[in-house]
Amino acid sequence: MSVFTFDIPRVGAQVFIEPGQTAAEIDTWFSIMNKYGLDICRIRLYESYMRKPDGTWDFTLFDLAYEAAENYNIKVFGTLFPATTFEDVGGFKFPRTYGHLESIADYIKNLISHFKLFKSCAAWVLINEPGSDCIPQDQFSQDKFNEWEKEQPEKNANNKGYHVFHFKEERFLVDYNTWYLKWLADEIYKYDPGSHLHVNNHNIFQNVQEYDFPKWREFLTTLGGSGHASWHFGYFERSQYAMAMSANAEIILSGAGDIPWFMTELQGGNNTYSGYAPMCPTKEEIYQWLWTIIGTGGKGGLFWCLNPRASGYEAGEWAMIDFQNDPSDRLLAASFVANIIRKNPPLFAKAEPVESGINLIYIRESLWIEEKLQAGGIPYEGRNPGGAMKSVLGYFEAFSEMGIQCSIKEINEFDFARDDYHGTTVILAHQTSVPSRQWKNLENFVYNGGKLIVDGLTAYYDENAHCIMKTGFPLENLFGGLIKEFKVVGNLFDFTLSDPNLTLSAHLWRGSILNKTSKSIARSDNEVIATRNTFGKGEVLWMPSMVGLGSRMSEYKNLTMLLNTELNESISTLPFRFKAPQEKMFMKTLKSGNSFITILINKNTGSQKVELEIRDHFIPTVLFADQDGIISRTNIVSISPEETIVIMWN
Amino acid sequence: MSVFTFDIPRVGAQVFIEPGQTAAEIDTWFSIMNKYGLDICRIRLYESYMRKPDGTWDFTLFDLAYEAAENYNIKVFGTLFPATTFEDVGGFKFPRTYGHLESIADYIKNLISHFKLFKSCAAWVLINEPGSDCIPQDQFSQDKFNEWEKEQPEKNANNKGYHVFHFKEERFLVDYNTWYLKWLADEIYKYDPGSHLHVNNHNIFQNVQEYDFPKWREFLTTLGGSGHASWHFGYFERSQYAMAMSANAEIILSGAGDIPWFMTELQGGNNTYSGYAPMCPTKEEIYQWLWTIIGTGGKGGLFWCLNPRASGYEAGEWAMIDFQNDPSDRLLAASFVANIIRKNPPLFAKAEPVESGINLIYIRESLWIEEKLQAGGIPYEGRNPGGAMKSVLGYFEAFSEMGIQCSIKEINEFDFARDDYHGTTVILAHQTSVPSRQWKNLENFVYNGGKLIVDGLTAYYDENAHCIMKTGFPLENLFGGLIKEFKVVGNLFDFTLSDPNLTLSAHLWRGSILNKTSKSIARSDNEVIATRNTFGKGEVLWMPSMVGLGSRMSEYKNLTMLLNTELNESISTLPFRFKAPQEKMFMKTLKSGNSFITILINKNTGSQKVELEIRDHFIPTVLFADQDGIISRTNIVSISPEETIVIMWN
Amino acid sequence: MSVFTFDIPRVGAQVFIEPGQTAAEIDTWFSIMNKYGLDICRIRLYESYMRKPDGTWDFTLFDLAYEAAENYNIKVFGTLFPATTFEDVGGFKFPRTYGHLESIADYIKNLISHFKLFKSCAAWVLINEPGSDCIPQDQFSQDKFNEWEKEQPEKNANNKGYHVFHFKEERFLVDYNTWYLKWLADEIYKYDPGSHLHVNNHNIFQNVQEYDFPKWREFLTTLGGSGHASWHFGYFERSQYAMAMSANAEIILSGAGDIPWFMTELQGGNNTYSGYAPMCPTKEEIYQWLWTIIGTGGKGGLFWCLNPRASGYEAGEWAMIDFQNDPSDRLLAASFVANIIRKNPPLFAKAEPVESGINLIYIRESLWIEEKLQAGGIPYEGRNPGGAMKSVLGYFEAFSEMGIQCSIKEINEFDFARDDYHGTTVILAHQTSVPSRQWKNLENFVYNGGKLIVDGLTAYYDENAHCIMKTGFPLENLFGGLIKEFKVVGNLFDFTLSDPNLTLSAHLWRGSILNKTSKSIARSDNEVIATRNTFGKGEVLWMPSMVGLGSRMSEYKNLTMLLNTELNESISTLPFRFKAPQEKMFMKTLKSGNSFITILINKNTGSQKVELEIRDHFIPTVLFADQDGIISRTNIVSISPEETIVIMWN
Repeated sequence: MSVFTFDIPRVGAQVFIEPGQTAAEIDTWFSIMNKYGLDICRIRLYESYMRKPDGTWDFTLFDLAYEAAENYNIKVFGTLFPATTFEDVGGFKFPRTYGHLESIADYIKNLISHFKLFKSCAAWVLINEPGSDCIPQDQFSQDKFNEWEKEQPEKNANNKGYHVFHFKEERFLVDYNTWYLKWLADEIYKYDPGSHLHVNNHNIFQNVQEYDFPKWREFLTTLGGSGHASWHFGYFERSQYAMAMSANAEIILSGAGDIPWFMTELQGGNNTYSGYAPMCPTKEEIYQWLWTIIGTGGKGGLFWCLNPRASGYEAGEWAMIDFQNDPSDRLLAASFVANIIRKNPPLFAKAEPVESGINLIYIRESLWIEEKLQAGGIPYEGRNPGGAMKSVLGYFEAFSEMGIQCSIKEINEFDFARDDYHGTTVILAHQTSVPSRQWKNLENFVYNGGKLIVDGLTAYYDENAHCIMKTGFPLENLFGGLIKEFKVVGNLFDFTLSDPNLTLSAHLWRGSILNKTSKSIARSDNEVIATRNTFGKGEVLWMPSMVGLGSRMSEYKNLTMLLNTELNESISTLPFRFKAPQEKMFMKTLKSGNSFITILINKNTGSQKVELEIRDHFIPTVLFADQDGIISRTNIVSISPEETIVIMWN
Repeated sequence: MSVFTFDIPRVGAQVFIEPGQTAAEIDTWFSIMNKYGLDICRIRLYESYMRKPDGTWDFTLFDLAYEAAENYNIKVFGTLFPATTFEDVGGFKFPRTYGHLESIADYIKNLISHFKLFKSCAAWVLINEPGSDCIPQDQFSQDKFNEWEKEQPEKNANNKGYHVFHFKEERFLVDYNTWYLKWLADEIYKYDPGSHLHVNNHNIFQNVQEYDFPKWREFLTTLGGSGHASWHFGYFERSQYAMAMSANAEIILSGAGDIPWFMTELQGGNNTYSGYAPMCPTKEEIYQWLWTIIGTGGKGGLFWCLNPRASGYEAGEWAMIDFQNDPSDRLLAASFVANIIRKNPPLFAKAEPVESGINLIYIRESLWIEEKLQAGGIPYEGRNPGGAMKSVLGYFEAFSEMGIQCSIKEINEFDFARDDYHGTTVILAHQTSVPSRQWKNLENFVYNGGKLIVDGLTAYYDENAHCIMKTGFPLENLFGGLIKEFKVVGNLFDFTLSDPNLTLSAHLWRGSILNKTSKSIARSDNEVIATRNTFGKGEVLWMPSMVGLGSRMSEYKNLTMLLNTELNESISTLPFRFKAPQEKMFMKTLKSGNSFITILINKNTGSQKVELEIRDHFIPTVLFADQDGIISRTNIVSISPEETIVIMWN
Repeated sequence: MSVFTFDIPRVGAQVFIEPGQTAAEIDTWFSIMNKYGLDICRIRLYESYMRKPDGTWDFTLFDLAYEAAENYNIKVFGTLFPATTFEDVGGFKFPRTYGHLESIADYIKNLISHFKLFKSCAAWVLINEPGSDCIPQDQFSQDKFNEWEKEQPEKNANNKGYHVFHFKEERFLVDYNTWYLKWLADEIYKYDPGSHLHVNNHNIFQNVQEYDFPKWREFLTTLGGSGHASWHFGYFERSQYAMAMSANAEIILSGAGDIPWFMTELQGGNNTYSGYAPMCPTKEEIYQWLWTIIGTGGKGGLFWCLNPRASGYEAGEWAMIDFQNDPSDRLLAASFVANIIRKNPPLFAKAEPVESGINLIYIRESLWIEEKLQAGGIPYEGRNPGGAMKSVLGYFEAFSEMGIQCSIKEINEFDFARDDYHGTTVILAHQTSVPSRQWKNLENFVYNGGKLIVDGLTAYYDENAHCIMKTGFPLENLFGGLIKEFKVVGNLFDFTLSDPNLTLSAHLWRGSILNKTSKSIARSDNEVIATRNTFGKGEVLWMPSMVGLGSRMSEYKNLTMLLNTELNESISTLPFRFKAPQEKMFMKTLKSGNSFITILINKNTGSQKVELEIRDHFIPTVLFADQDGIISRTNIVSISPEETIVIMWN
């Protein structure tokens, strides 16, 4: 039975198994993994390479891999990969017919029954990268949609009689993904009950709109992700890829909730023709990515891939070893990290991210609406798809430059059931849709001491793209006022606050506020454009302009000043942060027993000296620094360009 | 019966009625209109919100609106909107089946019979924004095409035996639009004979190719248009939107002929996701647009929309009132204009545009051919779709900067039946197709004293894209010569005339002329490139290079010098014009009895002092100036940036 | 019988025949050709204009043309053009059904039987511009594909058990084109056996991937091409069009092998709406193009077209005469060239290109793979389709600036059967796929004294996109080492050699080499990045970075220095070359008996003085110079901008 559990974070890789490979080669790859301290691997279990034309099964090729894994003490995460064409590079996401579904069940039966017997068999990956962007145009999916539609409640009570969009396709797609993953889990458990189940989402900044992580947790053992710089970080420049990895990791951490997570795929080598933005990771990037994952509580990272596939799309690409099976500097870097962890097992085994109490909330419906209402035209970042997510990233990056980590949560992942939210902040950055089921939750949150920061066109719509600002704003009491109207101002415009006194950059639209219980803190053209409202024991800071995205498009200096002032109470209780904001740097903090671990990454082109603001007194030890990184007695970290420094504090 | 007639120009707005609204809200909107002097409204009469699933009718929601309109003395233009999906934002343009046609007829019967009884019922709008860009791919349209095709004459007599394109789809689409509008008119007249019928074209600079205004006039009471800056003015920058409105208005004025026209839709508020170039009009733009419409003889303007729709596409967008039903500065601006007009009813009731005798002619077939012959490739403004219309706009903008208004007419709208054209000018700016039926007309025009200016590749083709310059040029006598060939020269090149002596900027192609009876007035590379030809009592100035568009792409300074010299005789008789050309300004002149009204708009970023050239002696009175605009005793107008000044002259 | 053979190179034109033209006009065009020394023409033989609705044939219109040709002693190449729609501007490329095939056969029977009787009938052009980019989606093509598929060998022996792409569609398309051309040839020979058969490929830099010239030669008398600057030279700027013509000519020269070739279509006049990059050739370009063709051994050039078509796409475009049938400067230029040739018949009749022994090899499979593996994303020249061909063009342009001509050959066109390759160079510039059948050939070539230069990702794949660098590199012995890995470095990066000592610009990827028998000549980041390997009597210079394309994207200076050093032995034996590289110039050299002809073209914006390096002693005579071009006693050529100079050396 495949019940692998993580103690310390692991470093691993995909071993790509395909016909043509020899037993000796396969053995070599596992021996390499062993030699370099990678003790977990993933293997794609191609039905096409197991089931013979006459219907019988020949597992030989993959047996070689599982056996080699056993011999070298490597744990295998086997990825289900039912028969598909040679040209299908990522695998299908949904069955096409009922016959197809049965065929998949039969594959699972044969596959699981066979491979579960290997000692190296650690876990099953239900599918490779779920997420299909749209409902397939086949009968099976149509039938499933019809079934689903029948189960939906007739009317949405919040429409006040208005006709609205229902987003049935979008809602179905979320549920359909969940249904299929659950079905796969159930099938596996018929033959290997209780085994470790895992799945890797991908392209998170876009695809997250069809993932329902809290539902997935119910049948997964661990949650994973594909965080491929060259495919998935299109909202970022290369110099921001470590930041992108950090945001990706936070999204998965939140999605995982009470189950562990790790990054199932990381780019291990060079792109030739595949990948959106071709690149070859540097060894420094390998350090940055792995430590960022670990710093976000990830239980490890697996590179795609150890050995390159030899044919088809991606032939010769992505690998951590070269064509002679010699290690690249990327593999050596990964090995270095693996060994640091192994040297400190109790420290890392218990390490957990320190929560700052700051929560960047994104809302699936905001992504749907943004997509649905596209009318073409002159492109603006905030109006094109991506506006909502990039607004969240704006705040995330600002906090990162302050040396503070914050959660990125889908609104359903946030715990609204607490009775005290002092020290907790929620930021709704241009989340145009706030579904009706969350209105009371947000009130309770603030009422019980929470701080809510509202940016952009947040709460313009409910979940049906109904404009709730027009028809009796349900958040009037909470926000302490009403929006009069939004106006396009320009691509970037000044947004000047009086309390605190500073000027931010904002993007595209500016809302004017009719303040009621709230206090105006910014005016423009004789209109109130930002307010504070005390509500119960908490406060709402309302800036109905795209300040997060506007800062992202210009600079974070003034936004970090605002956040520093605004969240002073919570921030000042953090064990570690930067004394002053640091452009192009970030820090992650873990707690392990009474110790802390801080991970600093410098993406500047020059060396930096960073003074840390530390709550208590600790003695630092540099666990890892890939260049000349040191920390002084006065807690000033010296860090080279591209360097990662890991410091233990006791 | 709905027989509304315009006395003075009216300002109004769309009141958007949809389920979910309360009687009180609806009442409020009409009271607002009343309060701010908007006395005409448009309502979209959704069948989907009237016909119940069991086939019975429930008019309640719309009754509330018509009743409120009655109470506040607002006239209603009801827009037919037969059942369509919630996602169909603009409505279908043609029936899909014969059953569908019957269903529309049934809707009309029920609708008209019911609403015609309201005193507020002023008129019917046949359809929202006809124009579908292509023939729908359904059986009904195919059948209609086949019927139409049978009625077409077998052969085009002008082909001289050559095989040619027949532009059947394009020609059919024009007739099909006319057929459907006429059918709708006939159906309405079954139940409300003699009532006021109106329709609003849209996206005029492109869609005009499928509109046959002279035919429409036969059954319309008034012609309208949607002139939405954010959707329809893609050929212009924002600083040119007032100019775009002016050109749009001129096209509709000409299309309307002997019936009145008004602008059925104007952008009233902000775009969020809808609109091509998102914006929120300023109050100054509201002034500019309304006065431009009035200055073009328009009987008013209706904003889209008073109140925002609450759901679906456009939710919360476009409105003149804010979410609290308070007036925006745009509504106040519109109200200001409405009140100026009401204070001077006889003046405005009789005001008519002063005709300059200058006619910019566009030819539908030129737009078709430009579209048909696209082969992709490196984009050039003059070779891409839009080249013909932008060439016309080039001259229009040049005249505008001279303070002169000129007509923009489809060639079929020009009156070729007069026997004296002294003082009349026709400009054919890159109208590549001159249909055979117009050859004699053009000759008569010049022969009888008209001045013809020919620009670009005008008359390269006949109506069938047959190259008439190759096979015996039918305009040889008129133009006084022949084209030898056209050559690509470059994106912009100098085009130097000797008479008068000045250098224009031209775009893309240059034609060389074999002059016969004409006189060369420009040479390049030993070729004649421009000529004058006396023909009868008139003259043809032939510049077969894209001078209008080339000037538009650079500056108008030298083109205005040319036009000033060239049209001196007609221009000098105009009652009002600018003494010298004014960049980014224009003026409209109305005559009302013995008075004149001049409307000046300044789109410069600085204040201007403009000296007027005035034919006779008048005493000016400033009727309207939204900033510090004044006129001196020496007829020098001082005007602020973005300001509109309206001066009455007695 | 139509058996025309070329003695001297001919200048000609397409005479476009269409209904509507008169006998007098047709006569005029042939008289013009005769007057200006164009003695060969091409006529498109439209079935649509010959076969009447009742099935009978009326050849009258085309008889007029063939008769006029007879009268003026013009030879006619008749292009088969079976019935198609009026909108089909280039003709279909494959039959659509078996019935269609029969109809084509019937057309051929009637056509050939009739026109072969004219004395002016010189040859048949099988089809206009074969090449369809993809397999048509009709039953006929599908059936042909299925037939073809059955005949293919079951397994590719070189896959080593790996699953691979089979490129069946691509391979079939090549064979399908050949099959159809051969079928057309066979049909013609039923009625006019032994007649002159010709065909014109087009868009060569892309379409070459579906042309199998060696197979075509078996049934063609002459090979041709359409080399239209405005349609086909998209990989070049306008100032490089002469260079593009030179490369196009070299590809066809190589494709033609032992049969003659000529350029079947050249742009003769202006584009209006057709063409990708609209232009009108200058007379200088006409000189450049014709002399470039002649300098590449072409037997002439035919312009598209003498007279413009009057209707349909291209109406009024492309012509060499103006709308009055007067000659353009382009026709006069073509005439000038024709007359120079006629004055020196023995010289030109025997003239053949001097082979430099330098062969730029492109490989069809590299183009296929480049296309197949596209994954979208950020565009890079070397990764997008075109990377392989532009890499070849990089070297071609570098040699051209050295005054050296080199062959451009598909690998199957190169003669690998010789037993001595001293003085012969093969350059594989980023030919990612080297098919297995060529591995031994390349070894033999070098072993027997050849010099092989390898650039970019050459030999990354075999013919099935299998990564041979991963699975036992078959060229290890030849190259003297192995690739460790390729890495994206950047759009342009320095590539510094130590032997010779110079720095080139490279693009995108850099490979690191594990050298075995070879000697390192460049290192970067502690990796070997270029090597020399002696193999048998020859040598391999391996630079696995995109040096050719990188130079093309920056400058050729250092690449020409490398090539000069590297190929010194062969180059120094050339009869003529530039003493020093000349930017934006090139030279072609012909040998005729004991005389030589050199053709120099200057595309600089200033006059140049070019010193020639001449092996032996000759007396120069300037045969042609369209401006002030002269040659001094010291063999320094003075040449004006855009000028072409043709020098005879005795």
